[in-house]
Amino acid sequence: MFVLVHGSWHDGSHWAGVVERLESLGHVAHAPTIAGHGHGVDKDVGHEDCVNSIVDFIVAGELADVVLVGHSFGGSVIAGVAEKVPDRLRRLVFCNAFVPLPGQCLLDDCPPHYRTLFRRLAEESTDNTIQLPFPLWREAFIQDADLETAQRTYRTLSPEPFRPLQDILELAEFHRLDLPKSYLNCTEDIALPPGEWAWHPRLSARLGQYRLAQMPGSHETLLADPSGLADKIVEAGRD
Amino acid sequence: MFVLVHGSWHDGSHWAGVVERLESLGHVAHAPTIAGHGHGVDKDVGHEDCVNSIVDFIVAGELADVVLVGHSFGGSVIAGVAEKVPDRLRRLVFCNAFVPLPGQCLLDDCPPHYRTLFRRLAEESTDNTIQLPFPLWREAFIQDADLETAQRTYRTLSPEPFRPLQDILELAEFHRLDLPKSYLNCTEDIALPPGEWAWHPRLSARLGQYRLAQMPGSHETLLADPSGLADKIVEAGRD
Amino acid sequence: MFVLVHGSWHDGSHWAGVVERLESLGHVAHAPTIAGHGHGVDKDVGHEDCVNSIVDFIVAGELADVVLVGHSFGGSVIAGVAEKVPDRLRRLVFCNAFVPLPGQCLLDDCPPHYRTLFRRLAEESTDNTIQLPFPLWREAFIQDADLETAQRTYRTLSPEPFRPLQDILELAEFHRLDLPKSYLNCTEDIALPPGEWAWHPRLSARLGQYRLAQMPGSHETLLADPSGLADKIVEAGRD
Repeated sequence: MFVLVHGSWHDGSHWAGVVERLESLGHVAHAPTIAGHGHGVDKDVGHEDCVNSIVDFIVAGELADVVLVGHSFGGSVIAGVAEKVPDRLRRLVFCNAFVPLPGQCLLDDCPPHYRTLFRRLAEESTDNTIQLPFPLWREAFIQDADLETAQRTYRTLSPEPFRPLQDILELAEFHRLDLPKSYLNCTEDIALPPGEWAWHPRLSARLGQYRLAQMPGSHETLLADPSGLADKIVEAGRD
Repeated sequence: MFVLVHGSWHDGSHWAGVVERLESLGHVAHAPTIAGHGHGVDKDVGHEDCVNSIVDFIVAGELADVVLVGHSFGGSVIAGVAEKVPDRLRRLVFCNAFVPLPGQCLLDDCPPHYRTLFRRLAEESTDNTIQLPFPLWREAFIQDADLETAQRTYRTLSPEPFRPLQDILELAEFHRLDLPKSYLNCTEDIALPPGEWAWHPRLSARLGQYRLAQMPGSHETLLADPSGLADKIVEAGRD
Repeated sequence: MFVLVHGSWHDGSHWAGVVERLESLGHVAHAPTIAGHGHGVDKDVGHEDCVNSIVDFIVAGELADVVLVGHSFGGSVIAGVAEKVPDRLRRLVFCNAFVPLPGQCLLDDCPPHYRTLFRRLAEESTDNTIQLPFPLWREAFIQDADLETAQRTYRTLSPEPFRPLQDILELAEFHRLDLPKSYLNCTEDIALPPGEWAWHPRLSARLGQYRLAQMPGSHETLLADPSGLADKIVEAGRD
């Protein structure tokens, strides 16, 4: 069984294409929305609220043997969830996802020009949230889709609460957990710039022993090629 | 509309397979030859002559809304063209191409063993040009083609004027331009060696915000897989 | 003609799928077993015994015009073979293989956590050999196969003699040889971790001028996709 945890500016509905493919392959897949995410909700949340909302979803559903998948920001969420309900999990799959070091915040893992941009956007908002400018979304997040898809999906994004990116994450327990871990890297993902600040191998290496899976695609492969991503999640997530 | 600017040792005719595919897809595509390039021409040119010859081509043809594509050496040419006729351009696409820093020359971006080799070859020539040795062409430029293709295409190459590689390029204006930019990286291109001196992300990162596209292939994918490259140029070049 | 030299924990039989494909394409292919490797043999060998066993195989068979392919540990073996019978060889192909520097041992090219692990495993054995733990094999060596394949192939592995990994290799002559060389890199091979300790370009760069070929796959692509690997070996190994 898969539980798919989305990233910043997303909500659970952005996994729809992936869920559809997983279900067509006979898998059970859930895609809950993280607290403070999506449209028309209170954005005043911290990182722990985010983690707790996914823990609550898993516990309430009495889910077990879960392959827990995190995309982007969702990586830090599944790391926190793994500390709280490790016995319910079979494997963690990080999809171009953050793997925070203990005692740091997510902003520490973003290159300086993003830190500056995000701080400015949060200050300019009325509710301490950040919204991606369309040109950045189109060029660096979803460059492998056509313009119409980029425009249509941009309208489904919602402002990202800034506080979870600033909260210090302990996560010492996560790094001691013996759970199997995979890193799924889409090779054209430049949402974090290639090189010094890249997703892989900078963040994947922090997992210790891990399984690597790769496929062509941008940061938003879950929107540009959901079926292909689902197949790769199955490969990355199996025993 | 595409204008395709070739690299060293090439002339416009080397784009023939790419142009054919682009036209079959309904696009207009031009592939002019840079000044001092091709067979039977005066090789005594500097980098500015190279740039001006492409500017002249665009202005004479009254071309507008141009997606300007540069391969290899052609990257430095399209950067110079962009400074002179920015209003005629829609986007720049760098295909395993140089992206010079202001105040440097192209040789500065070549690894030491190439600098030494190129200087020696230029000195040994009668007209300050350099010609690639076949083993280097076969192994590091077109290793994904069969031997017959490598031999046949080698015979179409012409000596490269050395001066444009030594000329200091200002290009301060280029780096301030707000034009959309893409970098198309063929993942087996070892014409520049992988690692410290690689095309990507070393040179792509200089573009600031850019769109990345990747495909399998050597430096001479325009000869080894022109149709595949054309499709990727469309993806990299669209809005 | 291809001579395929296996890596650690393997013997010649692990090339069976590759040999079958090469033969179906009309090639001659041999896959000898290195001294001290395989089941039920004396494991008390040094690196020179390994090299000599392959030299003997080539000389005894009066083989000539050989494309000599080495996988993993086999890279250090074909480097040694090339010093002894260069005139019998047409090209060397390193498949995610070691390319030792003169005066070093293979352990020098392994990251610290492997050195520690291998030393401990050798000490715990009764015959100075090392055996891979299954979780490491499954996650870092053959992660692109299904679990059944991983389990079945794990049972065919045999303990690796530790001495050849500790022996100092001279190989000064190898690095002066003018033989054509290729590096075939499977892009998901994390048997050596991506980044600082990666196969490519860390080890490939030591070849000087070389031809690069790449394909998707883990360290055990010879087991997970033998037919695809055989096709790539043909591409990497042709003139």
